[in-house]
Amino acid sequence: MNGKKWKEITWSSFLSLFGESYFKRNKCQMMMVLILSKNMFYSQMLRGSMTAIMRAVVVREFGGVKKMKVETDMPAPSVGDHEVLIKMHASGVNPVDTYIREGMYAVLPELPYVPGKDGAGVVEALGTKVTKFKLEDRVFCSSTSRHGTLGRLATFPEAAVFPLGGNLSFEEGACLGIPYFTAYRALVQKASAKKGERLLVHGASGGVGLAAVQLGRELGLQVVGTAGTDEGISLVKETGAHDVFNHRDPKYLKKLGAEKFDIIIEMLANVNLGNDLTLMNPRGRTIVVGSRGATEINPRNLMQCESAVMGVALGTATAEEVAEVSAAVVAGIKAGWVKPKVHKVYSHDEAAQAHHDIIHNKGAQGNLVVRVAE
Amino acid sequence: MNGKKWKEITWSSFLSLFGESYFKRNKCQMMMVLILSKNMFYSQMLRGSMTAIMRAVVVREFGGVKKMKVETDMPAPSVGDHEVLIKMHASGVNPVDTYIREGMYAVLPELPYVPGKDGAGVVEALGTKVTKFKLEDRVFCSSTSRHGTLGRLATFPEAAVFPLGGNLSFEEGACLGIPYFTAYRALVQKASAKKGERLLVHGASGGVGLAAVQLGRELGLQVVGTAGTDEGISLVKETGAHDVFNHRDPKYLKKLGAEKFDIIIEMLANVNLGNDLTLMNPRGRTIVVGSRGATEINPRNLMQCESAVMGVALGTATAEEVAEVSAAVVAGIKAGWVKPKVHKVYSHDEAAQAHHDIIHNKGAQGNLVVRVAE
Repeated sequence: MNGKKWKEITWSSFLSLFGESYFKRNKCQMMMVLILSKNMFYSQMLRGSMTAIMRAVVVREFGGVKKMKVETDMPAPSVGDHEVLIKMHASGVNPVDTYIREGMYAVLPELPYVPGKDGAGVVEALGTKVTKFKLEDRVFCSSTSRHGTLGRLATFPEAAVFPLGGNLSFEEGACLGIPYFTAYRALVQKASAKKGERLLVHGASGGVGLAAVQLGRELGLQVVGTAGTDEGISLVKETGAHDVFNHRDPKYLKKLGAEKFDIIIEMLANVNLGNDLTLMNPRGRTIVVGSRGATEINPRNLMQCESAVMGVALGTATAEEVAEVSAAVVAGIKAGWVKPKVHKVYSHDEAAQAHHDIIHNKGAQGNLVVRVAE
Repeated sequence: MNGKKWKEITWSSFLSLFGESYFKRNKCQMMMVLILSKNMFYSQMLRGSMTAIMRAVVVREFGGVKKMKVETDMPAPSVGDHEVLIKMHASGVNPVDTYIREGMYAVLPELPYVPGKDGAGVVEALGTKVTKFKLEDRVFCSSTSRHGTLGRLATFPEAAVFPLGGNLSFEEGACLGIPYFTAYRALVQKASAKKGERLLVHGASGGVGLAAVQLGRELGLQVVGTAGTDEGISLVKETGAHDVFNHRDPKYLKKLGAEKFDIIIEMLANVNLGNDLTLMNPRGRTIVVGSRGATEINPRNLMQCESAVMGVALGTATAEEVAEVSAAVVAGIKAGWVKPKVHKVYSHDEAAQAHHDIIHNKGAQGNLVVRVAE
């Protein structure tokens, strides 16, 4: 089985991870295990004949933020042949995490589960068939996992783990997956952005918005953003937008509409979509990244300029498309244009607060991150 | 100037066209002209020093169907270098003709104008730079022209005139442009239909709908249609749909949704679009061909399966795209799968009734055509 690679895990790393752990069955078994060699321990654990535990934020029933509980005896995940076990340092918080926690999402994990799709950390163990990583690699991950990034150990399929390199911190690395993958999929794979096109990032001061501004500049687009606070506006400007409007200014739509757009990245379609359809050039494309309810539109606005509205959620991307997206983002980290803005770092115990804040913020200013390891 | 080609027009054809015509200036001039040679007549007319007149349906102010008046002294159009003068036999009536007549369309002709974008007839004269046609060719046309197909003579740019060949009648030829071009642009250029995909033609018994059914079969799609009457349902089945539902059956949505769709061609988005978004497979595409008002949608339905809504109105198609579309339809005429269904033929005097009926029908059953020449 996977014992061979597990063996390579250092004993000290094991102790640092499980320092507060104990083994579930009973004290006798725990004592026995502690005197077994580390090799035997790991191979036992992998065979499931006993279970290591870890500190993790756990959801045992779908619902509000109060359903997120820090538990210190959550079973640590095992590692499948094609999986990577990551010692998580930081977990990125995205709106989708809250939809999943509420049970209001198309694909839901089996309960109980550890939330967190995005995160960054260090490779702790490798499945036998993993080829792209070695132990101790700094990595980031992005996918749905029952053993998500709010646990001190998380497992992800190899295809959902990516090299972080040395340019970014773990906190920054936790903000790459959903924000940058979504921005790339929206602008390149969905909107087929071409140099010189005019881009509106409608809600530009959040994680995806700032990533879209950076990518838009990298792609040679004319980038206009909106934000709802002075701080947000400054941030979007600093991030590279050519122009920024305050979407709380009653006249902003008139100002925006003075020159129309080829591409609109829309973070709150239930509020803005009807107007977006009037802001598009012929063959314009509005990409819906976020929406929290129904809205009224006039379909004729799509007909007259043969424009389009497309949804993005990463979920239907093929393996090839994910490979393209992640390769572009990894290259962007090296090139330097991928530079996440961490707005606030929460402690592991404050994860529920981060889930609250990502939805109820009054004007985003970058990404929210939970520090998972001390 | 164009005199050389105009010369080739037969005198008898001139007399048949202008038998009821007279020359505007005064009787003296009219008498003079009548004794001039035909060559001199045409070259005079082309220089604009005098004006031939014709029978045509004329709109002198935008508004309801009552604004359509048959006039017998409408100035006949002159022929630009790149234009074709067509002796119209039949004019196809499409909903867009009514939107233009009402002045409720993005691009409006200068007043007064002769309505009719689609039509079929015979080449009567050619601009000096026209290369693709010769006199007497049977042709169909489709474009916006101030001298539209409800006049006995109409001019269209060479690029908007296409060979009709011998397989179809003029009445059928008048139903090719908007219905088939729209169906092709929707299914091929917008939806990028692939063999084996499931297509819903939502409102399949009208002109575009039947064209979409025929094209869908030609493309190897699994074609489902809807119609609102028993006659419409029979027609859609006869036209080749694998399955047809009555969209007035309260349970039809449930029946429809049993197996979802990759492509939806939507004729009445203001009624159906919200539901369409729930009927799409991942990466589904709804193409909006018609809509008569605003409607509520839930944008989240677009996100979860990364589906798209796109408008089609032909207006933003490039010259290359129009060339592709028309080549496909002309090839389809020869191959035999392009076979318009003429539901009703109106006399020239009944053109206003045809405009009324195209909007107020209770269940379309094919195309409405106005016979322009006797």
